[in-house]
Amino acid sequence: MKNLTALFYPESIAVVGATENTLKWGSYILTNILDGGYRGKVHPVTVRGDTVYGRKAYRTLRDIEGAVDLVFITTPADTVMEVMRDCAAKHIANVVLITSGFSETGEKGEALEENVNAFAREHHIRVVGPNTMGIVNTASSLYATGSHVRPRKGGISIITQSGNVGNQIMEWAEQESIGIGKFVGSGNEGVLSCEDYLEYLADDEDTSVVLMYIEGVDNGRRFREIAEYTTRKKPVIALKAGRTAVGSKAAQSHTGAMAGSHKTYESVLKQSGVILAHTPTELLTISSAFDSMPLPKGKRVGVVTLGGGWGVITADECEERGLELPPLPRDVYERLDALLPPFWSRGNPVDLVGQPDIDLFFAATDAMVASDAFDAVILLGMAGSGKFVTRIFEARQRLGFAKEKEIDEFKKIFADRQSKFLDNIVDLMEKYRKPVYPVALISSPGDEIVHGKKGSAYSVILYSSPEEAVFCLDKQYEYSRYLRKRSVGYEEHCAGSDSKRPESAFRI
Amino acid sequence: MKNLTALFYPESIAVVGATENTLKWGSYILTNILDGGYRGKVHPVTVRGDTVYGRKAYRTLRDIEGAVDLVFITTPADTVMEVMRDCAAKHIANVVLITSGFSETGEKGEALEENVNAFAREHHIRVVGPNTMGIVNTASSLYATGSHVRPRKGGISIITQSGNVGNQIMEWAEQESIGIGKFVGSGNEGVLSCEDYLEYLADDEDTSVVLMYIEGVDNGRRFREIAEYTTRKKPVIALKAGRTAVGSKAAQSHTGAMAGSHKTYESVLKQSGVILAHTPTELLTISSAFDSMPLPKGKRVGVVTLGGGWGVITADECEERGLELPPLPRDVYERLDALLPPFWSRGNPVDLVGQPDIDLFFAATDAMVASDAFDAVILLGMAGSGKFVTRIFEARQRLGFAKEKEIDEFKKIFADRQSKFLDNIVDLMEKYRKPVYPVALISSPGDEIVHGKKGSAYSVILYSSPEEAVFCLDKQYEYSRYLRKRSVGYEEHCAGSDSKRPESAFRI
Repeated sequence: MKNLTALFYPESIAVVGATENTLKWGSYILTNILDGGYRGKVHPVTVRGDTVYGRKAYRTLRDIEGAVDLVFITTPADTVMEVMRDCAAKHIANVVLITSGFSETGEKGEALEENVNAFAREHHIRVVGPNTMGIVNTASSLYATGSHVRPRKGGISIITQSGNVGNQIMEWAEQESIGIGKFVGSGNEGVLSCEDYLEYLADDEDTSVVLMYIEGVDNGRRFREIAEYTTRKKPVIALKAGRTAVGSKAAQSHTGAMAGSHKTYESVLKQSGVILAHTPTELLTISSAFDSMPLPKGKRVGVVTLGGGWGVITADECEERGLELPPLPRDVYERLDALLPPFWSRGNPVDLVGQPDIDLFFAATDAMVASDAFDAVILLGMAGSGKFVTRIFEARQRLGFAKEKEIDEFKKIFADRQSKFLDNIVDLMEKYRKPVYPVALISSPGDEIVHGKKGSAYSVILYSSPEEAVFCLDKQYEYSRYLRKRSVGYEEHCAGSDSKRPESAFRI
Repeated sequence: MKNLTALFYPESIAVVGATENTLKWGSYILTNILDGGYRGKVHPVTVRGDTVYGRKAYRTLRDIEGAVDLVFITTPADTVMEVMRDCAAKHIANVVLITSGFSETGEKGEALEENVNAFAREHHIRVVGPNTMGIVNTASSLYATGSHVRPRKGGISIITQSGNVGNQIMEWAEQESIGIGKFVGSGNEGVLSCEDYLEYLADDEDTSVVLMYIEGVDNGRRFREIAEYTTRKKPVIALKAGRTAVGSKAAQSHTGAMAGSHKTYESVLKQSGVILAHTPTELLTISSAFDSMPLPKGKRVGVVTLGGGWGVITADECEERGLELPPLPRDVYERLDALLPPFWSRGNPVDLVGQPDIDLFFAATDAMVASDAFDAVILLGMAGSGKFVTRIFEARQRLGFAKEKEIDEFKKIFADRQSKFLDNIVDLMEKYRKPVYPVALISSPGDEIVHGKKGSAYSVILYSSPEEAVFCLDKQYEYSRYLRKRSVGYEEHCAGSDSKRPESAFRI
């Protein structure tokens, strides 16, 4: 296995092509590293000027005193070989080759790239790219992509064959407070490939979920082995783009990837336990669920709803995905019957028909989550109800019938309530080791989407629609089923050994 | 046909059960009407107190001087018959019966409701509900639901058999600046049914698109006739909930609707030209596309992208939905070849491979939209690119290398650019009568989603993902195909008559 630790956790970095010219990659990358909070040494390298962004600049890598763990190259394609020679001379083992103009531009670029790749292999230099968006490792506050996106630290690591798509996913993650671990735009994969990144992330303790955008892989057999190895340890969520003839043609013109038959990809990925997403938004949504919640042990879903329509929609979505809504067991029925008005639904979904009474909702939630009859519980409409009441108070105030203080008090009460509600869900997940999916009555831009609780391994996600919650639950159930199925097969074949590693294809 | 004009455009309103008690429906509705900007007369009716929210209160409807066009009833179920008698005595023709506790609660409530319904029919009183969330008509600034949601004025009118679902849709519309016309929560449909509302909206000039959430309809034949009549005039987007056995059971316990066979519903709706949505979010997304853009005449899609990955995803999504990405015609090819770097994609998607050069993007967009080879154009990644650059400037500033003023100038330049970009799309849609779907590179909460231009009938929607754009395009193409197909059949059968109205089932 390639050890990529020094690539993601470097102690010193050089940026070749560093410049203060705002709209150049040498500025994008350098300002991102400096502003992102990276604590190691950062050396600008440029033939022009003595300082860049206030840092002492060097004319070449060779001029830097002390070791350099990682180099970003942003200078034009025809200068890259020279920089690579400097890397070799200075025993630099890790390069992120941002520069484009290689194999993606035709024959001449291809020849240029082959030279760089051969040189890198010969001198044991690990190269990300060329034509890459860069890398991120939140654990070392290293934000080194062209786009200044700063998601919070977390367990989802991203491998992407499209920098733009990966970047957009990180942007969404930042907006929704979803935690990201590592990010790598694999670019043309001249030396390091997405299989190598996956292999590294499989054993990376800072990574709990791997998210992949794939257009094509070079070594299908090796990819499969590594994927199987990884999915035994942590979930891998992948989008395979270039599924159709037109898409595949577009992919070829994009990264030059031979997209291969989609059916083959799909079956290989599924058999390896990889969870498939259809779109980039799905990639993040699914990954976030895996990163936050325990897995459902089965497909029996309990639903508690504040209003009828949502219950119907949720029931449809569950059944259409093959999940089940079993009837309420006698003990839950009796417990709820004692609490709810006489005309309650008397079934699953449990319809609370009316006012957002939080104690009622808590009691119903507790009864459903505690019951052995359900493997997962969906809660509709309690979260977000504070916003509804706040608006009424604001209207009263504008009409001259409520005081500022009164509203503030109410807002506080409802904020506390919401936070108590979400904390309670985290506690229930801890206690019963089953996932609980709250869906907000009203959600607004800027809402807290992922709610953690100190001391808990789980966090709760506030979904904005029932279909999103059911979709995630279904994907988690798929993985849970895969693990159970494989664990049996595995024990039979390997008699307890848990660390059978795939044959490494260490090419450097 | 029932004339519901006085219901939606009343000159005077009474609220029975008016109260200043914040968490009562009599307060929700009254404060919403007063705060929402309604300009007609509003009379609180209550047995307690002389004023409510500063307005003179009446003990009964009979005590009000002058005519009352519309009454909201919020008092308990067992008081409703008495209020209805007052309505009849005062010749009030329109009632919104908020009160619950009728047929949805069992036999006793059913009997109570049947009495109310019979009385209403006998006295020609149009009743919305009972057990309804209320109504909205933005054209008369009448916001009269239990939830203080205030979407902007627009052409999408909503008929919903679930108040909560409808309310959530209005909330999303408000957040995304999507214009809403009328809203009606049909409740138990004791007197007025969703068919009646649809029939009214078919000829309502303030309504350009009808959005429906349906759990079940009582008179399938009539619904079909009205749907066929309506879809000839304007698009109808519907979600049929209770599609599955479990969902249908939940629907029955919710509104008591007999959900019927989903396959029957689906085929009836499709044959009537109704566009089906699968989830509430889809309902609004599709409706908004119809409300904003011209219809595509065919299924040939042109794509312009700033980055490769998005092009691949878009191509996959198009082909999987049966849309086509034809190759570039010679004239477009030559025009682009003269503008783009030598290694451009030379195909559709047109990949601009690199920097967000707005002039290049404009030229490519113009060439694609103007070409007869395409019926619709998708533009990926130009919009939102200003945010990317702004972030870089902000980082420079934090590092001490950019002045506040410099950033403000840049922000202004990019805001102007974005607005010019969106205006240009509106102009292109006007000129070529074909839809154009921009997808943002980075979209953030609070972004302007629907961008109008003064003097234009169209507005442009800024999509946050390619799949959303393709999805809407596909639905619009489906309706366009239906219209063309039916227009032929129609002319053959009706020899030019354009106003064959369905048989009215005027039951009052």
